[in-house]
Amino acid sequence: MIITMAHGSGGAATSELIDEIFAKAFDNDVLNEMEDSAVVPGSGRIAVTTDSFVVTPLEYPGGNIGRLAVCGTVNDLLMRGATPKYLTCGYIIQEGTDSELLKRVANAMAETAAEAGVKIVAGDTKVIEGNGGIMINTAGVGFVPDGVDISATKIAPGDVILVSGNLGDHHATILGSRMNITNTIESDNAPLNDMVAALLENGVDVHCLRDVTRGGLATVLKELSDSSKVTITLEEEALPLNPAVRDFCGLLGLDPLYMGNEGKMIAAVPKAQAEKALELIRSAKYGEAAALVGEVTEGVDGHGDLLVRTAIGGIRQLDVLQGEGLPRIC
Amino acid sequence: MIITMAHGSGGAATSELIDEIFAKAFDNDVLNEMEDSAVVPGSGRIAVTTDSFVVTPLEYPGGNIGRLAVCGTVNDLLMRGATPKYLTCGYIIQEGTDSELLKRVANAMAETAAEAGVKIVAGDTKVIEGNGGIMINTAGVGFVPDGVDISATKIAPGDVILVSGNLGDHHATILGSRMNITNTIESDNAPLNDMVAALLENGVDVHCLRDVTRGGLATVLKELSDSSKVTITLEEEALPLNPAVRDFCGLLGLDPLYMGNEGKMIAAVPKAQAEKALELIRSAKYGEAAALVGEVTEGVDGHGDLLVRTAIGGIRQLDVLQGEGLPRIC
Repeated sequence: MIITMAHGSGGAATSELIDEIFAKAFDNDVLNEMEDSAVVPGSGRIAVTTDSFVVTPLEYPGGNIGRLAVCGTVNDLLMRGATPKYLTCGYIIQEGTDSELLKRVANAMAETAAEAGVKIVAGDTKVIEGNGGIMINTAGVGFVPDGVDISATKIAPGDVILVSGNLGDHHATILGSRMNITNTIESDNAPLNDMVAALLENGVDVHCLRDVTRGGLATVLKELSDSSKVTITLEEEALPLNPAVRDFCGLLGLDPLYMGNEGKMIAAVPKAQAEKALELIRSAKYGEAAALVGEVTEGVDGHGDLLVRTAIGGIRQLDVLQGEGLPRIC
Repeated sequence: MIITMAHGSGGAATSELIDEIFAKAFDNDVLNEMEDSAVVPGSGRIAVTTDSFVVTPLEYPGGNIGRLAVCGTVNDLLMRGATPKYLTCGYIIQEGTDSELLKRVANAMAETAAEAGVKIVAGDTKVIEGNGGIMINTAGVGFVPDGVDISATKIAPGDVILVSGNLGDHHATILGSRMNITNTIESDNAPLNDMVAALLENGVDVHCLRDVTRGGLATVLKELSDSSKVTITLEEEALPLNPAVRDFCGLLGLDPLYMGNEGKMIAAVPKAQAEKALELIRSAKYGEAAALVGEVTEGVDGHGDLLVRTAIGGIRQLDVLQGEGLPRIC
């Protein structure tokens, strides 16, 4: 079946599309009620977030836009220490899209939601003009356990910066796909529930978590150093990289510090707990390549800085990403 | 300023866009924290919903896509008896969009959110190729008060169907705008908090609420009759219509029963409470033209039916909307 404008009418064709694809893929007691909104159990403190996904190509080595749309939003909830519970999904579909592609995307969403322990409780479908294409918005609700308080403002001098794995895999995958380069690189798109739970359940005093997406590690850490008015110094040699991604970057002149991931996070923890935290992340799903990559010291003159000590010992100052980066990476 | 692909990079240009437009328009304590997700007070039972908006034109008599994006999602929460509390918003912007347009849209969102009593707590911005255009997803979270249980399955024989106001205004506005027809018709896009609160706070035993959007009144009621296995009979002469919309429909051969609104709802209430409920809606904001339009009786042979008694006394069977309707009406 090819999607037409009629599938966005809100009438019979829309119902058919929803029944045939989304209701089958996401099947659960709440969504099946097909009400204007889902009524579900709440919690005293909730985390709320949203992300839209416009990645091209829609399918790439290691994943597709459906898996990505779950990971991105689930990870944003996890970064506040919340337990992800509910997802909404809004599909904007271009006419001309093959329903088989839509099924693969919806099925990937369903599988990833199951992996991440979230229920897709509400959805919406719109159709726009075009020649085939899918954009997805997901919003997420999580429950924040008592006593958990993780925030960008809590990063402090004496903390170390851990990265949960190799940098730049998703970016290199998307760029490689567009350039038709054949290699072994796959997207790291993944939900990070396991490593966050490992840290929180084992008494690590996590100050700050951030997932490393658009803009890459340098952009994330520069923003954090600014909001906490601290100096973060990275060790270039410590940055974990998949050798294939290192070669890819060398070939194309890319800097892994500005390349996006979709299944990596940084954790700021007190230095005294660095080894314990690193071991916990390494033992968790998707965390095997975690590394300690930097340290946090007092800010200079009341502002934040991001520095990197290069392999030959020099110190370079880093800013957030300037310019376009890689359009439509997520 | 004209939006470019760089504004979607996640780097400096994205921050500038967010600071300049969204942070200014939506300014509140939660959003200002600029974390990966918002942490906010919750509730024992929550309602969750989402809607994407792809309406063209982006601005039309009576509103714009920003106002629409708040109303659509707030109303979906209200239709379950929930008190709307939080909104997320995801912008997908085509390059080439004028930032002045974006400001007007964001400001309309902010004003409508204030009117509806919701806080915009999380956002996301993506940029795609194109020649100017904006699509918005909103997701909403509301608190469901104890004892409230409003659902499509509770509509029952003996209920009457109330409509909160004139049919088809939004549809006629969008179509008229595209055809460059000059008339007095304006979109009814509005948040329905006031009339829902009036019903719930004054002891009306509301069985079911639904907002009348894509597909129009007939599609909404046919879906309800199907899910509750009842017969709903409408009185054609009782359907409230703005005279200008009636003329517009006559001119173009449109059927108001299949035309979408964005600030109208139906309420199913027991016949004994019909007059009280009607008065409450009529006294509430946006409810002055409310009318009793139909009755609910037992379903025939275990299935649902939607019938309309025409002005000359005949009975016609109605189905959900077939075909395209009006593309990109919301």
